[in-house]
Amino acid sequence: MKLTVSTAMLLEALRKVLSVVSSRSTIPVLSNVLLEGKDNQLSLSTTDLEVSITTIVDATIEREGSITLPAKKFGQIVGTLPGGDVTLDTDEELTTQISCGPAQFKVMGLQASEFPKESELQEDRKVVLPSLEFGKTLRKISYSVSTDQTRYVLNGILLSNRDGNFTTVATDGRRLALVEKILEDGDSVEDGDVILPIKVVHELERLLDDEGELVIRFSESRASFEVGNTRVVSKLVEGNYPNYRQVIPASFQNSVVMQREKFLEVLNRVSVVVTDSGASIKVALEQDNLVMSASSTDVGEASEPLQVSYQGEPVNIAFNPTFLRDPLRQLECDDMTLRFNDEFKPVVMLGDEGFLYVIMPMRS
Amino acid sequence: MKLTVSTAMLLEALRKVLSVVSSRSTIPVLSNVLLEGKDNQLSLSTTDLEVSITTIVDATIEREGSITLPAKKFGQIVGTLPGGDVTLDTDEELTTQISCGPAQFKVMGLQASEFPKESELQEDRKVVLPSLEFGKTLRKISYSVSTDQTRYVLNGILLSNRDGNFTTVATDGRRLALVEKILEDGDSVEDGDVILPIKVVHELERLLDDEGELVIRFSESRASFEVGNTRVVSKLVEGNYPNYRQVIPASFQNSVVMQREKFLEVLNRVSVVVTDSGASIKVALEQDNLVMSASSTDVGEASEPLQVSYQGEPVNIAFNPTFLRDPLRQLECDDMTLRFNDEFKPVVMLGDEGFLYVIMPMRS
Repeated sequence: MKLTVSTAMLLEALRKVLSVVSSRSTIPVLSNVLLEGKDNQLSLSTTDLEVSITTIVDATIEREGSITLPAKKFGQIVGTLPGGDVTLDTDEELTTQISCGPAQFKVMGLQASEFPKESELQEDRKVVLPSLEFGKTLRKISYSVSTDQTRYVLNGILLSNRDGNFTTVATDGRRLALVEKILEDGDSVEDGDVILPIKVVHELERLLDDEGELVIRFSESRASFEVGNTRVVSKLVEGNYPNYRQVIPASFQNSVVMQREKFLEVLNRVSVVVTDSGASIKVALEQDNLVMSASSTDVGEASEPLQVSYQGEPVNIAFNPTFLRDPLRQLECDDMTLRFNDEFKPVVMLGDEGFLYVIMPMRS
Repeated sequence: MKLTVSTAMLLEALRKVLSVVSSRSTIPVLSNVLLEGKDNQLSLSTTDLEVSITTIVDATIEREGSITLPAKKFGQIVGTLPGGDVTLDTDEELTTQISCGPAQFKVMGLQASEFPKESELQEDRKVVLPSLEFGKTLRKISYSVSTDQTRYVLNGILLSNRDGNFTTVATDGRRLALVEKILEDGDSVEDGDVILPIKVVHELERLLDDEGELVIRFSESRASFEVGNTRVVSKLVEGNYPNYRQVIPASFQNSVVMQREKFLEVLNRVSVVVTDSGASIKVALEQDNLVMSASSTDVGEASEPLQVSYQGEPVNIAFNPTFLRDPLRQLECDDMTLRFNDEFKPVVMLGDEGFLYVIMPMRS
């Protein structure tokens, strides 16, 4: 393989694929990036056997071929290059000469044939979504994924397709976040549920940062995500996701509307005195007024009032401050609504279109 | 104590004093910041019993007094306040009410009398230096301080006053960095050597970031550093610093001049392939040309030429890349000079005014 490519474009492509590479894999080739040059394109692929990423950049190919190079080191080398074009020239001893201006490197690689390439995905269903919006959707819910390894189904997020609605759900059993979207071509999409591992969710959150179309294809055991020149393929989590609909209360007696950013600011301030991870912050509501407060034995107390829109009976609800903060940091709406029945039953937070968050109050 | 102070000024003052506070001290009051309000000034003090920092901000004092508060938490609280003025009101139960707009905190403190205040320093000698310049001087040498705990004298830096010269020295036995400065009022300053612990050196590097005058006072066992409204007092390291003059070669056969930033850029690039901390990079010199190269068995090779000004015989010298990089990142000069005799004897780097660095070549 011999080819020339823009250093800046190569670096950008490497940044897309490098994060799935483990430097401590027991299989040496998994620490490498697969480079394939043909048809005036250079494709770069990495995998950890669960998630695979491939991206393509334009290149001037002098001799077609392929090689794998140590991914992190290759990324570091390209990161230090002075700019302009870089030439990669691989010989039969698997040594790749990297030339950029006066800088010369010789890097030892491994056979391209050793690299475990993804087989073609047999598409069962396909969904097309705006890329940037889906990235935001994932960020609005992914903090709710369970980290308890024994509940492996909850370690992923649910992508559920029902009657033209596309719902993305995460829960750890103590809170639940979902975003529901009505698909434009909903009639043409078959119903189906899949569970996506959190690792690929985080990769997608990182990659889906630009306008454009995201094509998601599902097979029985895998999903692929194509955006621009980049394709991410992931295994799916096997198992059945719990019936999340049953934890959403059917009706509410009370509702309070407040400014999201202002509420978050007060929450950040008041929760400074909370030092114990099991401690709560209290939200006291009465006619158009909210007072947030917290206390701990080792630091002291904090309290702050906040103007809100509330017409119900006075009530005191205790929350885990982290659970309350997580969604507020990801939402984009000006106003946020809390709906509830009393201080013991699940509380629902509504904000951005299609977003719904269920949180259990704490016993204070 | 009851006083009102600008939130922004209080936060800036806290940032100056907070870094010496250990949150895991076995003496509870050492985790606290001492606040003393009188004469329309609020003074804030912290100490770890080795280094103490005190800084002063203007305040409107309604009731004089003093208290200590948990330093990190107090810093976090002030960091989240909405701005404007903040009022601190301490009662007889050692509880301090912090009020800023609608936000209210009550923080428990400890008696001011428990705080170990620095006794007055009996000044033996005094040196006055430009503050920003001395901060830079410390950064130009402090990376050379030994981290070997058994060589405690080399864990500090030497401040040496001799015949109107003020020399700042650091060495770990394998390299030595010094900055020599001719004092303007040198005749009036008595000779003397002290060794400053690295901890206070790092505090000073952080604090001395602005124009102004730095007054250094030495007593037998302590030194104080006064800049603006801030005073740092440190214990000195007991013991005798080795005779560093004897490691500086008296004469050199060869000299090479190059652009500092360009050399650093090439060094950063070539040393990417170095993976072993004991590995070297090679500098090959011939008539007006330098080639830097490195190799490792697990990654490969790198090499790059660089135009330099050199008239001597061809020579190959091997260096520890970190030792070569450290001073280059701190210097400000355009051109840097290496002076040497051969590939085995100590090499000297010269750059900024008064700066000298001695480095031992590696056996390649």
